[in-house]
Amino acid sequence: MTDTLIKVDLNSSPYENENVHNRWHPDIPMATWVKPGDDFILETYDWTGGYIQNNDSADDVRDVDLSTVHFLSGPIGVKGAEPGDLLVVELLDIGAKEESMWGFNGFFSKTNGGGFLTDHFPSAQKSIWDFEGMFTKSRHVPGVRYAGLIHPGLIGCLPDPSLLSTWNERELGLIATDPDRVPPLANPPYAQTAHMGKLTGDAKAKAAAEGARTVPPREHGGNCDIKDLSRGSKIYFPVYVEGGGLSVGDLHFSQGDGEITFCGAIEMAGWVHMKVSVLKGGMKTYGVKNPLFKPSPITPNYQDYIIFEGISVDESGKQHYLDVNVAYRQACLNAIEYMKKFGYSGAQAYSILGTAPVQGHISGVVDIPNSCATLWLPTEIFDFDINPSAAGPVVQDFGGVSMPLSLDKS
Amino acid sequence: MTDTLIKVDLNSSPYENENVHNRWHPDIPMATWVKPGDDFILETYDWTGGYIQNNDSADDVRDVDLSTVHFLSGPIGVKGAEPGDLLVVELLDIGAKEESMWGFNGFFSKTNGGGFLTDHFPSAQKSIWDFEGMFTKSRHVPGVRYAGLIHPGLIGCLPDPSLLSTWNERELGLIATDPDRVPPLANPPYAQTAHMGKLTGDAKAKAAAEGARTVPPREHGGNCDIKDLSRGSKIYFPVYVEGGGLSVGDLHFSQGDGEITFCGAIEMAGWVHMKVSVLKGGMKTYGVKNPLFKPSPITPNYQDYIIFEGISVDESGKQHYLDVNVAYRQACLNAIEYMKKFGYSGAQAYSILGTAPVQGHISGVVDIPNSCATLWLPTEIFDFDINPSAAGPVVQDFGGVSMPLSLDKS
Amino acid sequence: MTDTLIKVDLNSSPYENENVHNRWHPDIPMATWVKPGDDFILETYDWTGGYIQNNDSADDVRDVDLSTVHFLSGPIGVKGAEPGDLLVVELLDIGAKEESMWGFNGFFSKTNGGGFLTDHFPSAQKSIWDFEGMFTKSRHVPGVRYAGLIHPGLIGCLPDPSLLSTWNERELGLIATDPDRVPPLANPPYAQTAHMGKLTGDAKAKAAAEGARTVPPREHGGNCDIKDLSRGSKIYFPVYVEGGGLSVGDLHFSQGDGEITFCGAIEMAGWVHMKVSVLKGGMKTYGVKNPLFKPSPITPNYQDYIIFEGISVDESGKQHYLDVNVAYRQACLNAIEYMKKFGYSGAQAYSILGTAPVQGHISGVVDIPNSCATLWLPTEIFDFDINPSAAGPVVQDFGGVSMPLSLDKS
Amino acid sequence: MTDTLIKVDLNSSPYENENVHNRWHPDIPMATWVKPGDDFILETYDWTGGYIQNNDSADDVRDVDLSTVHFLSGPIGVKGAEPGDLLVVELLDIGAKEESMWGFNGFFSKTNGGGFLTDHFPSAQKSIWDFEGMFTKSRHVPGVRYAGLIHPGLIGCLPDPSLLSTWNERELGLIATDPDRVPPLANPPYAQTAHMGKLTGDAKAKAAAEGARTVPPREHGGNCDIKDLSRGSKIYFPVYVEGGGLSVGDLHFSQGDGEITFCGAIEMAGWVHMKVSVLKGGMKTYGVKNPLFKPSPITPNYQDYIIFEGISVDESGKQHYLDVNVAYRQACLNAIEYMKKFGYSGAQAYSILGTAPVQGHISGVVDIPNSCATLWLPTEIFDFDINPSAAGPVVQDFGGVSMPLSLDKS
Repeated sequence: MTDTLIKVDLNSSPYENENVHNRWHPDIPMATWVKPGDDFILETYDWTGGYIQNNDSADDVRDVDLSTVHFLSGPIGVKGAEPGDLLVVELLDIGAKEESMWGFNGFFSKTNGGGFLTDHFPSAQKSIWDFEGMFTKSRHVPGVRYAGLIHPGLIGCLPDPSLLSTWNERELGLIATDPDRVPPLANPPYAQTAHMGKLTGDAKAKAAAEGARTVPPREHGGNCDIKDLSRGSKIYFPVYVEGGGLSVGDLHFSQGDGEITFCGAIEMAGWVHMKVSVLKGGMKTYGVKNPLFKPSPITPNYQDYIIFEGISVDESGKQHYLDVNVAYRQACLNAIEYMKKFGYSGAQAYSILGTAPVQGHISGVVDIPNSCATLWLPTEIFDFDINPSAAGPVVQDFGGVSMPLSLDKS
Repeated sequence: MTDTLIKVDLNSSPYENENVHNRWHPDIPMATWVKPGDDFILETYDWTGGYIQNNDSADDVRDVDLSTVHFLSGPIGVKGAEPGDLLVVELLDIGAKEESMWGFNGFFSKTNGGGFLTDHFPSAQKSIWDFEGMFTKSRHVPGVRYAGLIHPGLIGCLPDPSLLSTWNERELGLIATDPDRVPPLANPPYAQTAHMGKLTGDAKAKAAAEGARTVPPREHGGNCDIKDLSRGSKIYFPVYVEGGGLSVGDLHFSQGDGEITFCGAIEMAGWVHMKVSVLKGGMKTYGVKNPLFKPSPITPNYQDYIIFEGISVDESGKQHYLDVNVAYRQACLNAIEYMKKFGYSGAQAYSILGTAPVQGHISGVVDIPNSCATLWLPTEIFDFDINPSAAGPVVQDFGGVSMPLSLDKS
Repeated sequence: MTDTLIKVDLNSSPYENENVHNRWHPDIPMATWVKPGDDFILETYDWTGGYIQNNDSADDVRDVDLSTVHFLSGPIGVKGAEPGDLLVVELLDIGAKEESMWGFNGFFSKTNGGGFLTDHFPSAQKSIWDFEGMFTKSRHVPGVRYAGLIHPGLIGCLPDPSLLSTWNERELGLIATDPDRVPPLANPPYAQTAHMGKLTGDAKAKAAAEGARTVPPREHGGNCDIKDLSRGSKIYFPVYVEGGGLSVGDLHFSQGDGEITFCGAIEMAGWVHMKVSVLKGGMKTYGVKNPLFKPSPITPNYQDYIIFEGISVDESGKQHYLDVNVAYRQACLNAIEYMKKFGYSGAQAYSILGTAPVQGHISGVVDIPNSCATLWLPTEIFDFDINPSAAGPVVQDFGGVSMPLSLDKS
Repeated sequence: MTDTLIKVDLNSSPYENENVHNRWHPDIPMATWVKPGDDFILETYDWTGGYIQNNDSADDVRDVDLSTVHFLSGPIGVKGAEPGDLLVVELLDIGAKEESMWGFNGFFSKTNGGGFLTDHFPSAQKSIWDFEGMFTKSRHVPGVRYAGLIHPGLIGCLPDPSLLSTWNERELGLIATDPDRVPPLANPPYAQTAHMGKLTGDAKAKAAAEGARTVPPREHGGNCDIKDLSRGSKIYFPVYVEGGGLSVGDLHFSQGDGEITFCGAIEMAGWVHMKVSVLKGGMKTYGVKNPLFKPSPITPNYQDYIIFEGISVDESGKQHYLDVNVAYRQACLNAIEYMKKFGYSGAQAYSILGTAPVQGHISGVVDIPNSCATLWLPTEIFDFDINPSAAGPVVQDFGGVSMPLSLDKS
């Protein structure tokens, strides 16, 4: 039986667990050490540490303090891993905690995080997704069921002081260009809600003041939210500190490319069974700056799609120059408009795009002035035929099911 | 035997063929009419109308007049198609012209078109790709062979006057923000090199002066350069004028997501066998603004990839805000760096990314301030093992093969 | 949390568990009842009830009493299911018991069960396979690792008295044609080792004397050993008795088409999470005699194969008439011969064919006098390149690892 | 432009073409010679040499003289290929003749060839399949359209005298066990209708008297009718004579595993673009007795199936011992019964099984006394939803379309 090196108790606060942290800093002590070739299990909280509940109100999504996220399990030290190496991590399996067979998806309020389509969906909304073995379905989003593409939204190694500096400088620099923006351009270090693992006292205070927030993906991996880092994949991480310091969290049962709903994929508490090894000097040998990975041999094999195009002309008709973000947003909006013709609310359609194994492709990026992005919606996830036909769309009877919404407090 | 409704003679100029045009304008007369349910073949020039030659010099890529492109075959009128309908086009098959079993890929000079990585590859370069049945390989890029993912880079229906106006206004507006930029932000109408099909005299002059350039993708489809519009796919195009006015060209034997090399994919002359039908009133019924499509049941089934990540911090270390373009550029550069470790020149690696069935995914787009994009490089296209291993990369002996390069004339 | 309706204790005998049985008979009482729409978990023994051990001796494979198998968990009664209905079973998930993360594969001695290639491998042999999350590998068969294609070898509903009679008559009739054959042509009822679930006393004795052995697949499904009934699949079973009476066991972590090694696939103890519903009158409505099923959307997506052909001329050169068994045996032998060139023993190669997700196709069955069968060996399961090449096969250094063998006792 | 080394004129008899032959014999002179590394095109007749016509009568299927088949193009000599080598053949592409964009499928009369289900379909029937680019559909079998899985039913090298002897001896031996059987157990040499390529006079007469019929697959490949030898695949053939002597014919646009209808797949005239090389001494090096091959990277990617099971109890209820043929026949009959519930005639359903990319798997072959075979019917080929549902099957309105049938002449 594989050892579970880090356990989490969903009934207690992640702040009480010294093998959990929510900032990146080289001083965070290793939670434990392993050897190359070891396989082991780490349990994790959901990214909010249990703040979002399995109920029918979006109040928690509206009110969550985003300075607390993400609660990560680790860091794991790997003996012999040194700066310049690649830490090879095989995700042997990933699952939900047995006592918590559900996940959540939501949209943050525009004033508290927002999302890719926040101008169209400015209020907090939530959907709960139940797990049935390898599948998931929602009482708030009818007519769909997916096979899970389970993956960690966030995984990576500790930065060294120099890399941490680089992060803080460049992100603070960005913030400085528009410091009052809501939502902000980036999240600066924030000591008040920092959880630095085993660190205590002054050492903790110092690290908390400097620790990089976990929100963005960076050179070390981090919060990449790549749906394809799924169980069965094999990842090569740059190593910056002795032992690597691997941490993981923010597990997703399923997600579409882009994680466009931001809150987020189908978020869950769970466990990761992984195996580690070290590729000595691999950063230089292979010219690696960001992680690279090999996909899993077992993923949902959905093959039939409806594909929506978007170009870099925005909703108001404004022309943007080769902007893939604008193009993908249009493709998303086109898909939502299409799904609405079958009886979905816009919010439900948006939620499907955020949670189903939707593909987002950068299809054309040189044909000035328009980029072209495509959104691939798998048709097999629907209980009904969602293809276009001569007969026109059949509006489904979803029995009035809707997604909880919580308006901002005035 | 299926009728070939438009033929092209590769030995004569596309300007002499009245069933060819290189601008979008509602006044271009239909080349011919068909009925819903008809299937037929259209031959096409390569996008440059034969300017680029099968030789070992990149001079033609350097010197090509980009105001002449793209030479399209059409427009085809479909009886009964009216504005507001969807024109359903099945791409039954696509192939190269029998007398022209090769294609080209290249990078434009930064001063004449550029490309996605033009700051890294500022000079004109070219590679020639030979077709061996369903496969292609290049005498300039060794060690790889792909199965073709043949598709039209450009396909769509004629705009109506109102849509044409919208295009011209918004693109001229963009140009006006930086009119002297090289390369320009967009391409305005340009009458001198316009080819308006059967139009002659004043009618031609008027349309040529207004006609939208074919470079960008737009609401009607157009130059989407979506590799997945491959033979066997089924596309739903918005109809704006009586009969639709379907034109096609810019055939690609294979291309990676983004068509990052710009000149372009593996470009070829060829033919398209298609079948058309009409979905009456489909634009409104299905809420369609841009084309949507169903992918082909027959595409290369490459399943093993090395996946490279990129984030929106640029080459100089500058932080950008959720910019997918920057992130994808980093993923591309990471992949090029990796391939160089196996013996490729940067140009060869760039050419592989532009021509192979590489996937580009918008992986994360909400984790401020960094977007995450992934580039999926299929490993099965290589003659050798390109996976990372404990033994390190094996530098291949490619016998000194390189890609032709032509410096800008001083 | 899903209810586990049947639990098994791997440290106690399956004969002590009244929710387990090893014969088919309509009188076996339901272990428990559920309602259509319910999902639940059943734990199961491995097919031998724990007889085969995780060690390096094949003595247990040689000595096992095959009259005891297979130990099934059930029967489950589904309220409202009546004869003539179809019982729809979704395999939501399947896994190994946490305390037993391994499985076994073996060849029976020719005098005690045999196997598809028993004339070539007449002695008992065994290999142990360890599970690493979704993957498996063996200390006895080096150089390979597979993603699991987990499935029940045996699943089906109780027969009614008439169907049971039919089974017994036709199988006893076959035995009567060569009653002294070793191995026998079929297995008759055998009361001594029968385990009839909750039945006791005379009722048990009567049923034990009549109960059909679990070895063959029959109209109700049963021991089909179809690797594609994997987790995520959906099966439609004929119903013969009130409540259906669904039983399941003989879980496999992975298996090749044909289960040619007989002892068997990678055999394991574990659990099945399933969901049931009823399609009223479905046997007649859909003309169903044997079960039908829909495959899982998540299975290992190995795409690269070496495919071996076999025809119905046997090892001695004798011509058989359109005999697929002979043809498939030749394809298997051809594959074994091929793998031996890379350093495997014949037994190891045979074991790979029995355990890996090998496909066996009935390729040609009308071209007198030779059938053609093909065996598809996935290349991605090997740690090394097993493709043919101009350089010839590279014999691997497997460090002398071999498969335990136990000769028959004299 | 690739050279077409053998051309066929569909308006003239194959007997008039000296680069065609219909028997296997080492004395048949090479039609032409090529070098390793060459790629070239061979045109072929359909297997009957044009006997079956594109019309609505099955008389030709009833009356065809099966002693004339199969008309093969070749043999091609490859310089340097010697006995013991492997001839590596890449099928670069395959297509129909431009002037003949259709194919046929049929069932032979039980008295003239029969088929896998001849007891159920004893009379000659025919369906015509039209090609629409990469797809095919039939005016006789409504409701289905497939992407082509184009392949040669027959391809292989010339035998040497010893191998030819072996073939004749073992097949004549089989015939001798029941010489009056209808249909016969095998086909002996038959000089009257033999076409021996360039051979004339006494040499031809001698070879014609000895030449092996082309019907069965044998050690050299031959009439394997493996649907997966499709364009893009790479085959390794044993070489028995100097130069190899590669011949090919019997092209199929599409076929199900087993080619159960015998007459045959979707049979067509066409061309094969292939490339050859030699693996010196490969038969011994790799232990090769029958051909082996690597599948194509481009095949129809149908992923959704209904899977039918069959066991080795025949239609009359008789028990057979581990007989895969009987089991597959039951799976086929089960699939036909199912399709009939949706409005197909039995003959149409049988034709679909013979022509669509149906998979036939040898699922279980050791569970005495029943083998289990599965037939995989792709659902995406149907215009309507053919899955089982609570609502029951919807009988389609096929407008009375039926398959031509021609009774035996009395």
